Amino acid sequence: MTDTDKNTRHQARMTRKKAIIDASIARADQEKGLLLVLTGNGKGKSSSAFGMVGRSLGHGMKVGVCQFLKSRTDTGEEAFFSRDPKVEWHVLGDGFTWETQNREQDIATSQRGWVVAQRMLADPSYAMVVLDELTYLLNYGYLDAEQVLDDIAARPAMQHVVVTGRAASEALRDLADTVSEIADVKHAYRDGIMAQKGVDL
Amino acid sequence: MTDTDKNTRHQARMTRKKAIIDASIARADQEKGLLLVLTGNGKGKSSSAFGMVGRSLGHGMKVGVCQFLKSRTDTGEEAFFSRDPKVEWHVLGDGFTWETQNREQDIATSQRGWVVAQRMLADPSYAMVVLDELTYLLNYGYLDAEQVLDDIAARPAMQHVVVTGRAASEALRDLADTVSEIADVKHAYRDGIMAQKGVDL
Repeated sequence: MTDTDKNTRHQARMTRKKAIIDASIARADQEKGLLLVLTGNGKGKSSSAFGMVGRSLGHGMKVGVCQFLKSRTDTGEEAFFSRDPKVEWHVLGDGFTWETQNREQDIATSQRGWVVAQRMLADPSYAMVVLDELTYLLNYGYLDAEQVLDDIAARPAMQHVVVTGRAASEALRDLADTVSEIADVKHAYRDGIMAQKGVDL
Repeated sequence: MTDTDKNTRHQARMTRKKAIIDASIARADQEKGLLLVLTGNGKGKSSSAFGMVGRSLGHGMKVGVCQFLKSRTDTGEEAFFSRDPKVEWHVLGDGFTWETQNREQDIATSQRGWVVAQRMLADPSYAMVVLDELTYLLNYGYLDAEQVLDDIAARPAMQHVVVTGRAASEALRDLADTVSEIADVKHAYRDGIMAQKGVDL
């Protein structure tokens, strides 16, 4: 096939593709506050949530972030995003549950954290609320899953919520508008590479 | 089981878990520049890359971003991240290939874009380089895949590279340290929801 043939075929294919895509864009004409769930064992769940925080702040939207497990406050994400006065950033954890080794303490910490989330989920001035690593608190039974899902479902109509963490439950997936399952095809950690600034923290 | 029993069992389980995790952290003791590939059809590939941009900037690292397909410059991500003088942000596309419908123009645009990426990949002052939507240029044959992989492989030892886009090739996956495959379990778009500020742009 000559280059001219290739170019002609390419144009015909792309004209058809554009017609399909334009029709599909025309059908998608509604706006609403979305519940997005980023789950699975692969790298990229929290960083994706933080990318959406950046997008929202770029549009001047107010954002609330709850980090439910993390206890360290020296992360790149907090340092960077907290510079923007439109973000409210809460590190609500005590570290992972295998650090505290104390179930009652974990439950109390989780419930204190959820009060912060509830306040944001009831306030339409937050255009986006990130509930980072929430799934662990639900899966360990540290929070009442029904209450949590009710609070998310009852939020203001235009508020986006992003939930991250492994093993999102069926009930959470059912409530969600968008669910991405991130598979861990390959991870540098298994080759002996430590968590690194910029990439992991 | 009483609450006391639950708490005791929990502690024993978490003590074992901590031992396993601590040993695994001790084994992961190396640092190097990583190649991360975020692929698959689900939502979250570019936003995850942008989250890592935020993390890096939070640590004062210099970051280069090449957006190879996007032509619009009114996105939240560009508005937000470009505020930081340590980021260099390039929107290098003409829109998607079905918009231009012109293969030769797409090839020329792609090659001009790759020159920008090559400069960053040769410069150790960039701690992270994001090659957003690069896979499409490789899969359409707009760039020489072998050249691109060579340029990425030859980068400075401590530089992180993040590649996003659907259908990453086997060769790209082989070169990568971390590969996440993001499955589209559910997407609001299919329920007629348009791309929304903060979430998608």
